Amino acid sequence: MEEQLRKDMIQFIEGSRDAVVCSIDEHGFPNAKTMFRRKTEDLRTIWFSSNVSAVRTQQWTACSKACVYFFDREDNAGLMLTGHIKIFTDDETKRLHWNQGDEQYYRLGPTDPDYCMLRFTADKGNYMSGNKYLFSLDGCVSVAAHHYDGKWTQD
Amino acid sequence: MEEQLRKDMIQFIEGSRDAVVCSIDEHGFPNAKTMFRRKTEDLRTIWFSSNVSAVRTQQWTACSKACVYFFDREDNAGLMLTGHIKIFTDDETKRLHWNQGDEQYYRLGPTDPDYCMLRFTADKGNYMSGNKYLFSLDGCVSVAAHHYDGKWTQD
Repeated sequence: MEEQLRKDMIQFIEGSRDAVVCSIDEHGFPNAKTMFRRKTEDLRTIWFSSNVSAVRTQQWTACSKACVYFFDREDNAGLMLTGHIKIFTDDETKRLHWNQGDEQYYRLGPTDPDYCMLRFTADKGNYMSGNKYLFSLDGCVSVAAHHYDGKWTQD
Repeated sequence: MEEQLRKDMIQFIEGSRDAVVCSIDEHGFPNAKTMFRRKTEDLRTIWFSSNVSAVRTQQWTACSKACVYFFDREDNAGLMLTGHIKIFTDDETKRLHWNQGDEQYYRLGPTDPDYCMLRFTADKGNYMSGNKYLFSLDGCVSVAAHHYDGKWTQD
């Protein structure tokens, strides 16, 4: 992947406070929810915090397929990543990601049994900013730019 | 459904310029994209415009399952509807929804072969605004309020 494009995308994520995170429900429908982005490790790994009792957490336990979507209305730009979500309920991971003030969400502190961490790992994605770019994160290589000229076609 | 709650949700949709609309891709992953809301008919039917050549349109042709998500960051409120998307490519439907200025998206006008309309029909949803409400739109009846008290439980 071109280095500048990667940098642009990471900057785009870092500029977003939260993301729309999608799951598959028990009837096979996509579901969406806004979640706070807790930590981003390059383009590939994004951490979120959640509740064990939340419907979404139960959905990702049953089916780990997920999508994370960042967008900027004013610039009409969007970045979508698809991949898998893994749920962490162990105290070590929970303590590692705990921030001051999280008590407002998880009253019992970092070992609150209803507090869990979600690790999203991206496989591929698309980035729309002027042009449209489709990319894969396996080996961090292929990028295919698309443009609109009466219909969407690959450059 | 309580009348006031229905009115609140319609007002919430009408206050949103666009929505995040989700599909299922060919590998069974959820996908998300911001789309302009064109017209809302009560809570059940929402129209969007799109391109025949767009990846999303192809996905809904293969699998009509969809989710439409509206949210307000400042109020931490969100409304998610799940249901089906049907694609309309006939000139009558396209003309009916054509607005002045749409030439910027569909150069050839209302009969542009790459312009299509998407009709989303909701089956059920959830609304998060202070409390959380789960509701069904089949017969417009059941609402189940949920609250958080250490974990998510139904009232």
